[in-house]
Amino acid sequence: MKDLEFMARAIELAKKGKLTVQPNPMVGCVIVKNNKIIGEGWHKEYGKDHAEINAIKNCKKKFGVKKALKLIAGSNVYVNLEPCSIEKNTPPCSNALIKYQIKKLFCGTLDPNPKINGRGIKLLKKAGIDTSVGLLKNECKELNRIFFTNQIKSRPYIILKSAQSLDGKIALQNGESNWITNSESRKNSHRIRSSVKGILVGRNTAEQDNPSLTVRLSKKELGLGKGELFQQPVKIILGNLKQSKKVSKIFSSNAKIIIGSRQSAKKSKNVEYLEYKKKNFIEEFLQDLLDRNISSILVEGGQKTLNAFIVNNLFDELVLYTAPMFLGKGSINALSVNSPNAIKTAMKLKMVRVEKFKEDIKTTYYNKRL
Amino acid sequence: MKDLEFMARAIELAKKGKLTVQPNPMVGCVIVKNNKIIGEGWHKEYGKDHAEINAIKNCKKKFGVKKALKLIAGSNVYVNLEPCSIEKNTPPCSNALIKYQIKKLFCGTLDPNPKINGRGIKLLKKAGIDTSVGLLKNECKELNRIFFTNQIKSRPYIILKSAQSLDGKIALQNGESNWITNSESRKNSHRIRSSVKGILVGRNTAEQDNPSLTVRLSKKELGLGKGELFQQPVKIILGNLKQSKKVSKIFSSNAKIIIGSRQSAKKSKNVEYLEYKKKNFIEEFLQDLLDRNISSILVEGGQKTLNAFIVNNLFDELVLYTAPMFLGKGSINALSVNSPNAIKTAMKLKMVRVEKFKEDIKTTYYNKRL
Repeated sequence: MKDLEFMARAIELAKKGKLTVQPNPMVGCVIVKNNKIIGEGWHKEYGKDHAEINAIKNCKKKFGVKKALKLIAGSNVYVNLEPCSIEKNTPPCSNALIKYQIKKLFCGTLDPNPKINGRGIKLLKKAGIDTSVGLLKNECKELNRIFFTNQIKSRPYIILKSAQSLDGKIALQNGESNWITNSESRKNSHRIRSSVKGILVGRNTAEQDNPSLTVRLSKKELGLGKGELFQQPVKIILGNLKQSKKVSKIFSSNAKIIIGSRQSAKKSKNVEYLEYKKKNFIEEFLQDLLDRNISSILVEGGQKTLNAFIVNNLFDELVLYTAPMFLGKGSINALSVNSPNAIKTAMKLKMVRVEKFKEDIKTTYYNKRL
Repeated sequence: MKDLEFMARAIELAKKGKLTVQPNPMVGCVIVKNNKIIGEGWHKEYGKDHAEINAIKNCKKKFGVKKALKLIAGSNVYVNLEPCSIEKNTPPCSNALIKYQIKKLFCGTLDPNPKINGRGIKLLKKAGIDTSVGLLKNECKELNRIFFTNQIKSRPYIILKSAQSLDGKIALQNGESNWITNSESRKNSHRIRSSVKGILVGRNTAEQDNPSLTVRLSKKELGLGKGELFQQPVKIILGNLKQSKKVSKIFSSNAKIIIGSRQSAKKSKNVEYLEYKKKNFIEEFLQDLLDRNISSILVEGGQKTLNAFIVNNLFDELVLYTAPMFLGKGSINALSVNSPNAIKTAMKLKMVRVEKFKEDIKTTYYNKRL
């Protein structure tokens, strides 16, 4: 079935924006006339043209403006997400599709935002354009898990990351935890860092490890072209971290830092301090992060911080790197949550992917309770 | 290179004997004249014809005896393991190859038994036959890990198997451990059972779980033909298990049972009691098992038994099924060995394979200290 192929192509195009569109969704668009693609495009960067507009531009470039107008009129358009219906940084795409008189719109999913969900489709229908919603729906949702989570849960998409030995330990009793995983695993974890808008660690881990919290991959490794800009994720600290020599790496670069704690807020260049009254302020903190366009975060540790997110059911994805060694019963559990009363009431995740990095294993789980 | 292809074919053929040749090694043989296979065979069942003899028979069947004799004379023969040089159940294959006047023998590895290692090759050389040892050596060794372990370590090949939650637990504090893994994982573990000569559990597990310790797979599922017989593995109990209603499933069938303990031995139909003086008698017990042609065992639990094998470095393979759930810090560790003083001295395994069974993950590790 050709329709499926065209939608699959739209999804492929959408993915090209992975590292640059957040907090926007990834969107791809394919314009088809007589079963042939006459234009395609994707949303390339937050604040810039949407996929539909880029597909129209692509058609014009290919055929010249005059012929493009003729071709687009009466065409079928495939897009993974409902075209926008409100003016924000750019004019709404629904209007453009109406203006260019397309014949039919296929969209994978509606916009998850309950306030505008279905509005784009309504506008198109009113203008006499055929619409079909739901083609490759699951794939389209999966593609934009981050955006859907933001819209539905009003918080960033949360990825928890931990390493562990094959017996589930993260560190020896004395705290030693370096070099459990191998260099390929560590490199891969930089790839996860590159896909999020913020990296969060607890204050203790920040003080003990003095991590840089930066993505150390080249543009080539990131698959970015010459002209494409990569923005380092924001460094996020949970707890009252004070600037000092001990944490020089965190404060050294020009990266933006956000610190959330119960201490009174103060101001500093590049550093934003957020102050909370409640003892358990994680949820409030997360909302404030999303308000600052931090649509996704990677929580890297320490274990207390990771477990706080699990216990509060504040995560969407768990990534575990398992190294082929025993750390033994005297060592510290990587994941340490309360036990259920019975196995059937145990917290279950959805295993979605398993990858090998030399002899380490990376397993990716989704939170079933999403 | 054709030589590699012929040896690879010999390995393929050898694998057909996987479920029926133990304690013998799997062996495949290919006879080649003018770059064409004129005969092939494999060792099908313990006590029956070896691969070389079956390949010669196959050639005779294809071409008739007279033509076969002419063809085999001056041929190249590919076999994964050194041809035998001593008469045991069958006449030595080295003699046959000499008698049929082959031109050159390619063998993957020498016989691991230090007493006869190289003797077959010596005989052939003495008879003026060219020999080449080492083609696909690693693959040939991997194929017969069981046989090599038996010969070198004088004990069965030992596979440890455990299930665990993603946080490394096997059971709740109250002992509940049923249904952590899914039905596909459990089915797969029957496949492992089918590949060993004995299944070992500790006395406590036997009493608590009353397991059948049988392979519950059809001949079709096992990939066995009509004429091929499948023999259930021997049930092996570590500790003084007494016959009672509580353990009816273990004692119910006609399967052979071996019980090793410090209690005085007694006699019973189908049940052999072995008596040991030393407190830690595992090694002695293992040797006695090999003497009874139990060339491979699967250790299924409980955790104390599994950990005793790990701590004593008595294992060759560890199979872990990881289920996508948390059992929490109050639950019982699946693997619980002593911790190292430093991570660099931690016991490390070799990760060799990772497989998915729905949402469970099966990881296979080799003991690096082999």
